[in-house]
Amino acid sequence: MNTHGTPDALDRIRHVAIAVPDIASAVAWYTSTFRCTVAYQDASWALLDFDNLQLALVIPEQHPPHIAFGSKEAEKFGALTSHRDGTRSIYVKDPAGNYVEIMAAD
Amino acid sequence: MNTHGTPDALDRIRHVAIAVPDIASAVAWYTSTFRCTVAYQDASWALLDFDNLQLALVIPEQHPPHIAFGSKEAEKFGALTSHRDGTRSIYVKDPAGNYVEIMAAD
Repeated sequence: MNTHGTPDALDRIRHVAIAVPDIASAVAWYTSTFRCTVAYQDASWALLDFDNLQLALVIPEQHPPHIAFGSKEAEKFGALTSHRDGTRSIYVKDPAGNYVEIMAAD
Repeated sequence: MNTHGTPDALDRIRHVAIAVPDIASAVAWYTSTFRCTVAYQDASWALLDFDNLQLALVIPEQHPPHIAFGSKEAEKFGALTSHRDGTRSIYVKDPAGNYVEIMAAD
């Protein structure tokens, strides 16, 4: 059983980050193309809220494109780094070399 | 108002597809690392169910990595292609050149 009271709940994907060279123009395109809202934006990255997921737009020189998964077992991958928003996570790579952020599910 | 009866619902991200050179080893890694289930798998791609999203693993020679968004206005981007599973979509690129699949929200 997990904290949701269900025995076999699936892990949640927290956000997906893709590379764009210019944050402002990418935010303008995504917010005009889709129904989404801007949760955060500065010159190096932005975070857009969709119904079921957050989409991060990142300048590749500062942040690697990645997918962030919530996991109750994040600590088993190593020491977690605490972020300013209170989340804790560690970056690993899948067998193909894709960056994967594993976030504590708390 | 939309079909959900709410005036300002956000669009839903339907799936995210990332490139892996070997489907079987990627499926093995993701299913052993996270709580997810295999919805489909063959030699060229696989589809994993997470709580809020499907993650597609694709061989890059056959499928471009992309993010698929549901939209009630998919048709305005051009003629939609019908797929075997009944979905209809069109591929476009964002200003950064990332592939974006726009799927009819029906």
